[in-house]
Amino acid sequence: MGEFELISHYFAAAPCAQGGEGVALGIGDDCALLSLPAGEQLAVSTDTLVAGVHFPAVCDPWLLGQRSLAVAASDLAAMGATPIGFTLALTLPEVSTDWLQAYASGLDRMAGHCQLSLIGGDTTRGPLSITMTVFGRVPAGQALRRGGARPGDLLCVGGELGNAAGALPLVLGQRQADAALVQPLLDHYWSPSPQFALGQLLRGRATSALDVSDGLLADCGHIAKASRVALEVNLEQVPVSAALQGLLGAEAAVQAALTGGDDYVLAFTLPPSELSSLQAQGLAAFHVIGRVLEGQGVSLRDRQGQDITPRQRGYQHFRETP
Amino acid sequence: MGEFELISHYFAAAPCAQGGEGVALGIGDDCALLSLPAGEQLAVSTDTLVAGVHFPAVCDPWLLGQRSLAVAASDLAAMGATPIGFTLALTLPEVSTDWLQAYASGLDRMAGHCQLSLIGGDTTRGPLSITMTVFGRVPAGQALRRGGARPGDLLCVGGELGNAAGALPLVLGQRQADAALVQPLLDHYWSPSPQFALGQLLRGRATSALDVSDGLLADCGHIAKASRVALEVNLEQVPVSAALQGLLGAEAAVQAALTGGDDYVLAFTLPPSELSSLQAQGLAAFHVIGRVLEGQGVSLRDRQGQDITPRQRGYQHFRETP
Repeated sequence: MGEFELISHYFAAAPCAQGGEGVALGIGDDCALLSLPAGEQLAVSTDTLVAGVHFPAVCDPWLLGQRSLAVAASDLAAMGATPIGFTLALTLPEVSTDWLQAYASGLDRMAGHCQLSLIGGDTTRGPLSITMTVFGRVPAGQALRRGGARPGDLLCVGGELGNAAGALPLVLGQRQADAALVQPLLDHYWSPSPQFALGQLLRGRATSALDVSDGLLADCGHIAKASRVALEVNLEQVPVSAALQGLLGAEAAVQAALTGGDDYVLAFTLPPSELSSLQAQGLAAFHVIGRVLEGQGVSLRDRQGQDITPRQRGYQHFRETP
Repeated sequence: MGEFELISHYFAAAPCAQGGEGVALGIGDDCALLSLPAGEQLAVSTDTLVAGVHFPAVCDPWLLGQRSLAVAASDLAAMGATPIGFTLALTLPEVSTDWLQAYASGLDRMAGHCQLSLIGGDTTRGPLSITMTVFGRVPAGQALRRGGARPGDLLCVGGELGNAAGALPLVLGQRQADAALVQPLLDHYWSPSPQFALGQLLRGRATSALDVSDGLLADCGHIAKASRVALEVNLEQVPVSAALQGLLGAEAAVQAALTGGDDYVLAFTLPPSELSSLQAQGLAAFHVIGRVLEGQGVSLRDRQGQDITPRQRGYQHFRETP
């Protein structure tokens, strides 16, 4: 296992592994040690990405390095947590210096962007797979959970939806298009930006939140179920990028925005008074797309207020061999 | 991914997933939340086990459930941490209810034994692989690290060594023997018992500690390097089980104890005054096997004090296809 021990030393030398706020002890002992300010709780989330299941088995390792951390970190943003660090469990079929250098460089870039320190992990031989466990801190009682939405609240999202789903055929090389259309979508797929600032802004304001990973309608369903309420989405208010519309056309773009996954923008519910307060401070840089009602489930309304809720809501995540 | 979502619900219903001390929020939201008492730090460690690399691809899932958690939890014991919880990232080639039930049952047994709560994780499709991230708490500044051994300290281990290495040919079905000899070794391999009580006892007493996973001599090398000292091991003081001697003979048993891995007992250094104090209280239920000297590296002495340090120190972890 000598080669693999060398890999550990390689990651230990990365800038993101040199410690940071909250990291009392980083890589190199049996455990890492984290410190929390008094009155704060630790937020923890684990995500696994498997080659050929969650990303193409052959892909740019620099992009993979970015995406693998961002996907996990987005769960911290969804709780309103301030980022601290992460562990990396990397399983590799073989040791390739070029691959590792590029992967570590992409990882380091995203770690810097998210202000997350690499605090430990494990490197093993086997089929390519990446498990990240991410850590953040949040004042006790202020974490954004899924179960607090109340009738009368507004339903909001933190950014455009559907871009990652639109990018998928491009990522898989099944489709080609103008670089001007393609690049913003590919950027969003490979380098999603966890909405930490928005999550922290929503502490003590939003009544529920999560990050959109399974698709807007499916994830709204999670809030509705946990909060025991109904959510109503207004189709025309769902934000869709010009690039996605250009690539897919208006109708398919909206469809992608409703059922596509992997967007990693926040969806949340907000009392109207909190919206007014944020608007008054110029802090409402997000989109109101619907409202919370008594009842259960998720419904979709068109411009005329007609119920056009589709049957199929789920999103089939990336699958290399359909 | 419907099947895999069902698996998550399955683990969420396990007794070990019903929360515990320090778990403010368990499975079911974007993150789990942990609380720490004032003045304590969080200890974190991640371990991956890959089928065919770290355990036989075909093995008893109940035993695997126990072992996969114990191996990771041992790192908490080595820091002197009090256990809190763990996340489970489980990658499975297919959904088998029998397999899952047995695995979850073995996992739950070890979680109960270690007082660790399952707080989250991820279940994905792919080649069989298990990544555990474990969490414990330790008073700030009292974690047992590798770098504090001082000349004059005594070198100690928490229990018999070599049992797991002796069990390996039995686990792989390459060797058979009397059940009376075999069972204690197989028990140790499949169900190692992390030495939490010993680790916590050593807080503020031991000058360095780790758990023996790479083999005694190799792991003593880690303490020697981190502490910038030399370690001297007295061969005749290294504890070896009767079962191992019965299976391998005296000489090979000692060899297994020196270079075999996966023992998951603690190795640590202790000032003589601390040993006396623990002995006076009847708390010295461990083995003194050597001492710390000025210098570097690890040396081995026989009964006559002759240096018999072997060249080969490393331990090749389990490899199904040599």
